[in-house]
Amino acid sequence: MDTPFTRLKGGVGAPQGFLTSAVSCGIKNPNAARLDLALIYSEKPCTSAGTFTTNRVKAAPVRVSQAHLRKGDLRAIIANSGNANACTGVLGIRDANAMCDAVANPLKLKRSEIGVASTGVIGLPMPMSRFEPKYDELLERLGPKNGSDVAAAIITSDTHAKEFAISFDLGEHRIRIGGCVKGAGMISPSMATMLCFITTDASISSENLRKSVLECVEESFNRITIDGDMSTNDSVIVLANGAAGMPMIRRNSSTCKIFRQALRLVMLELAKAVVRDGERTTKFVTVKVEGARTYLDAKKVAEAVCKSALVKSSWNGGDPNWGRIIHAVGYSRARIREELVDIHIGGKAACLGGLQAETSMDELREVVSHPEFEITINLNQGESIYTMYSSDLSPEYIDFNRSEYAYWKQARKDGLV
Amino acid sequence: MDTPFTRLKGGVGAPQGFLTSAVSCGIKNPNAARLDLALIYSEKPCTSAGTFTTNRVKAAPVRVSQAHLRKGDLRAIIANSGNANACTGVLGIRDANAMCDAVANPLKLKRSEIGVASTGVIGLPMPMSRFEPKYDELLERLGPKNGSDVAAAIITSDTHAKEFAISFDLGEHRIRIGGCVKGAGMISPSMATMLCFITTDASISSENLRKSVLECVEESFNRITIDGDMSTNDSVIVLANGAAGMPMIRRNSSTCKIFRQALRLVMLELAKAVVRDGERTTKFVTVKVEGARTYLDAKKVAEAVCKSALVKSSWNGGDPNWGRIIHAVGYSRARIREELVDIHIGGKAACLGGLQAETSMDELREVVSHPEFEITINLNQGESIYTMYSSDLSPEYIDFNRSEYAYWKQARKDGLV
Repeated sequence: MDTPFTRLKGGVGAPQGFLTSAVSCGIKNPNAARLDLALIYSEKPCTSAGTFTTNRVKAAPVRVSQAHLRKGDLRAIIANSGNANACTGVLGIRDANAMCDAVANPLKLKRSEIGVASTGVIGLPMPMSRFEPKYDELLERLGPKNGSDVAAAIITSDTHAKEFAISFDLGEHRIRIGGCVKGAGMISPSMATMLCFITTDASISSENLRKSVLECVEESFNRITIDGDMSTNDSVIVLANGAAGMPMIRRNSSTCKIFRQALRLVMLELAKAVVRDGERTTKFVTVKVEGARTYLDAKKVAEAVCKSALVKSSWNGGDPNWGRIIHAVGYSRARIREELVDIHIGGKAACLGGLQAETSMDELREVVSHPEFEITINLNQGESIYTMYSSDLSPEYIDFNRSEYAYWKQARKDGLV
Repeated sequence: MDTPFTRLKGGVGAPQGFLTSAVSCGIKNPNAARLDLALIYSEKPCTSAGTFTTNRVKAAPVRVSQAHLRKGDLRAIIANSGNANACTGVLGIRDANAMCDAVANPLKLKRSEIGVASTGVIGLPMPMSRFEPKYDELLERLGPKNGSDVAAAIITSDTHAKEFAISFDLGEHRIRIGGCVKGAGMISPSMATMLCFITTDASISSENLRKSVLECVEESFNRITIDGDMSTNDSVIVLANGAAGMPMIRRNSSTCKIFRQALRLVMLELAKAVVRDGERTTKFVTVKVEGARTYLDAKKVAEAVCKSALVKSSWNGGDPNWGRIIHAVGYSRARIREELVDIHIGGKAACLGGLQAETSMDELREVVSHPEFEITINLNQGESIYTMYSSDLSPEYIDFNRSEYAYWKQARKDGLV
């Protein structure tokens, strides 16, 4: 981490003036008390911004949150895990609105000041009867905490909760940014995480916050992939409440530059945490493309390599298979010349000028045996670069994703299908 | 099969005037006598056509065969399995030329009348010293056979040899078309099979044959996917020797129409055979997209669904998961409206208007439990259609593709690396 940033405990509760809460409604698992409904609330009015899935099939909460952000700023977020409220039609919209209404009235907010997010199985009706008895408890539990309750409540197939928070100084004012994320499956650009919430006590206009979020998402969440599948529910929502008492961050100012650097850091740490916790994956691979003719060429190469089933299988097997990497480079549709391509694995030359390099196979295998390593692909045709973060693909991933029949059986038990 | 076509035994040897041969050089497996070097030769001069991988990383034999086809017509094809001769630089070109020369002189042909193809591991030098002692035997064995020796010699991770041949009448003349294919991994449009050779005793100009091949490949090999990885070696080469004694097939004639129908049938049967024999896969799924605004929209939807790791995992698990199908439809970049999408599985409605249909889950699960089934996705926005053939993705596929270290160890033993 760069010097000016200090890591804090917790996530969305770390900045001043944010209260959090989470309860268990039995959606994720009817038989175990796992947190699955969460609330984030700012004591002061906020500015806000969000980016959402570019999938044309959008979950109801995505549509509702987008509409609310168009109307003005959010001040609270309600989120559940276990059911994505996707492909649920007008009933889904009704249910997402009902979730907003359930907390808007007690918090004395307008419905349009609430952001709503859901994650879980697609195509099953929301079990609203499981939420309703729990709203009171959700509101009662609201208090100044570090936000770990929210991080725990939004995870699904994740193996652990993921949050990150930092503090840094802007002039005489100490600013905090905190966030949580859930990921695990259906992870691919654009807009890679399924759900990510970020809070800050900085003062920043809605317009400036929106631009900052777009810029930072492009360099973090849009650069990760696990399985290449883009979700229907991907949402990043950021709330800024100004509780640190600083003057408004002006666009193009030096404070704005530092703020964006901090926001990017938080998003990148959360994005990487999603890849590291990919469903049943075992490797975290940084793929750096250099020497491309254009940014787009570099991006195409990185995406082709990071999404190739054969490349990902070889990573799973600890095989430094540069032949499969260059074959994906070749079909990326980027303008490349085979005889110019260099590939380094963990800094060691695997392929030079399109041909096998001198490095011994044992040295390369040693690199790939580690849980994290870096691959550099130099196209030697220009100056453009692009970096992506990817995982392997494991037999266990496929086994894990073979069937969602159990969810359907539960929905039938609940009388929903 | 349509009425006028009769299936024949064998493959590339079924048409008149083609001789075949295959020998074992110990490339595929040094310890077991498996055929791995094959030769196809026409007793009469041929017209010829080919389509090749669009991967910018092209194996040496692809470059050499393309150059030979530009110079004129081919009359023979030499092919090996076990080593792809890809990413092998100028030495690879030298070796591909040497394979052509080894048979050109004894057959009294020019080097440029020979097509050459290789399939196997990428990035390792060709073990030429294993071929050289076997060329004489390859030429001695050349004779009138049905071509099953060639089909057996080109397979790699395939579980069985794949060939198909038919006869049909054009006026008073009986015409035969036969072909063989190898596939299994690295299978994706465009130019999906790694190697496919087709022979016919029809009389057709090079120009007309080239157009026929392009049209038929587009509707067969370019419509299949197993793992979404496009190979460096994909080659389809077609030889026509006119041995049936018929007059030349004229463009746009009724006989040309029947010939193309027959050629398409052979290619489609071979392409489907590749998917059915996908590496460690268990399902053959036909995905029909209907009601798209344009052909390109229909194609984008079919490709997104057929390449989704999550959709393929659910097929592996026998789970009729329409939620994952519609989520892939959504991120396909085709212009779709969620509320118009209908999905039928085995003719039974799974999703109507973007919402779960009435069909019971048990009925849908019964369909998906079969090794072959059909999914229809109607976008209800236009008249365009597109059909693709896909497999599931299995834990065993990944396990199978985890490491090619054994090939490298063999190459080291051979003193090649």
